[in-house]
Amino acid sequence: MAAALALAERGVGCTLNSPSVGCIIVKDHIVLGRGWTGQGGRPHAEAMALSQAGSSATGATIYVTLEPCAHVSERGPACTQLLIEARPARVVGAIVDPDPRTSTKGFNQLKEAGITVETGVMASVARRQLAGFFSRLERQRPFVTLKLATSLDGKIALANGESRWITGGSARAHAHVERARSDAILVGAATVRIDVPALDVRLPGLENRSPRKVMLGSGTAPDGWDVLRSVDEISSLDCNMLLVEGGAKTASAFLRAGLVDRLLLYRAPILIGAGTACLGDIGLEDLKDAHGRWHNSLARRLGNDHVEVYDRAL
Amino acid sequence: MAAALALAERGVGCTLNSPSVGCIIVKDHIVLGRGWTGQGGRPHAEAMALSQAGSSATGATIYVTLEPCAHVSERGPACTQLLIEARPARVVGAIVDPDPRTSTKGFNQLKEAGITVETGVMASVARRQLAGFFSRLERQRPFVTLKLATSLDGKIALANGESRWITGGSARAHAHVERARSDAILVGAATVRIDVPALDVRLPGLENRSPRKVMLGSGTAPDGWDVLRSVDEISSLDCNMLLVEGGAKTASAFLRAGLVDRLLLYRAPILIGAGTACLGDIGLEDLKDAHGRWHNSLARRLGNDHVEVYDRAL
Repeated sequence: MAAALALAERGVGCTLNSPSVGCIIVKDHIVLGRGWTGQGGRPHAEAMALSQAGSSATGATIYVTLEPCAHVSERGPACTQLLIEARPARVVGAIVDPDPRTSTKGFNQLKEAGITVETGVMASVARRQLAGFFSRLERQRPFVTLKLATSLDGKIALANGESRWITGGSARAHAHVERARSDAILVGAATVRIDVPALDVRLPGLENRSPRKVMLGSGTAPDGWDVLRSVDEISSLDCNMLLVEGGAKTASAFLRAGLVDRLLLYRAPILIGAGTACLGDIGLEDLKDAHGRWHNSLARRLGNDHVEVYDRAL
Repeated sequence: MAAALALAERGVGCTLNSPSVGCIIVKDHIVLGRGWTGQGGRPHAEAMALSQAGSSATGATIYVTLEPCAHVSERGPACTQLLIEARPARVVGAIVDPDPRTSTKGFNQLKEAGITVETGVMASVARRQLAGFFSRLERQRPFVTLKLATSLDGKIALANGESRWITGGSARAHAHVERARSDAILVGAATVRIDVPALDVRLPGLENRSPRKVMLGSGTAPDGWDVLRSVDEISSLDCNMLLVEGGAKTASAFLRAGLVDRLLLYRAPILIGAGTACLGDIGLEDLKDAHGRWHNSLARRLGNDHVEVYDRAL
């Protein structure tokens, strides 16, 4: 299952509205097929793995990170049907699909076809990997990561507006991997106007994984950009993983609305002093209310900088 | 020498103008005496260790973290003379005393008395431990640590002034150990007026290590406090280790004057948003000038908080 999850990781940020799934087919300790959700959501991981295994999948064990889809789509047959036709001995799944068209139906149909089904294997890891997909289905909005890149004193620019660069190359490369894992990336209208940011993934081999660009606020967006007039309209984005990159006003608006699931903090070993704070009013009125909201899940050095991840406490 | 340095650590922040020194006397793998600089600077480490060893010091090896003093003071005899009278076979020293009354004379007198002298052992560790003493003698000012305790976004209080507490118990206890290692602790006049901070060491067993209290700025200081009218008068403090605790105006004044040698940063896993920034104008005009000034030497978790230390690049 860990290997299947690693395959699924390849598709995170590239599958549009589909979940990124991984699949491995094994028989007699030999891997017969490996699949992951393709760019734009097709082919599905199971279809890819089954096409590699061919008729040898009969009697094999098939690992899938998410329950196979049970509904027929115009884009392809239901994976549950493909699996039944391949006649494996056993299917091991991580989690049940939250999509009501499939939820529990996929696993049940496999059982009814006489296939041994085990579920819940590495479920929490799979749940985390599919956080965006679950968020879209369960909360009708993307999973939101807020990125802040600041000096040690929490500033994102000098008083004169200068902000390039605060963090170094390693931290910026790390941030580009985060972009590649996102379906869409959002900045405020002021940032668009002042910086005209490219927001693309500038890492060798990942250039084609640049996410959709979204501008928050009023004004005209550049060609090819989507526009969100207010954070209240976030559902309209209809995507799994959203990365919010700034500036301070935009970051504060997302925090004020309680829409941030994960903080991605890059911190350079510099002091700026007078300058632009990374956050404005986030609606905090009592210091006690600020505590217990964020759990640190990562802290490491990147070149001279540090990266930290804080997950929203449930 | 490592053991002698550990003994010396006991006196850091408690020896007034004297350096905190450690001394160990060893013969045939047996420790015969251990000494460290006493409260207020006396007794000296060598005198304490020699008084334990008595006549058995003859032929022994004596480790000292700083060159023994060669000048007679009204507070006691020169340690170099005491060492010569004890007739050890060998003296191992870490570094030469920067005080011109002793510098090189101590080690030379020992050699002239027929004692084998080795120097430079763990010199860089000793130099760092004695940073305050060296700073006072070489730069006529204390070694300055600036403490900042902030939210993730670099704030030290809410817009309404609320600031208790940002960090948790472990971070605050760590900060009290830093107080105990300081000879003086300084806050701005506004902080004195608003908070009337106790600034004492509230850790069991360290209560008697509370440092001198200094107020920066104009106005009347509480009883027992020293006053510094401006950071330009820092030499007048005549102490080794100074801890600057805030607020933002005071911290900025020290940074603007280039007087900060070490940053001690505590960071709580909270966001404040609109509020008081930890720093104001520090005189930075070009972002390029902010880089390369600070080297991270410590980063660890303390409860839910993080502590980081940044040393000024030389």
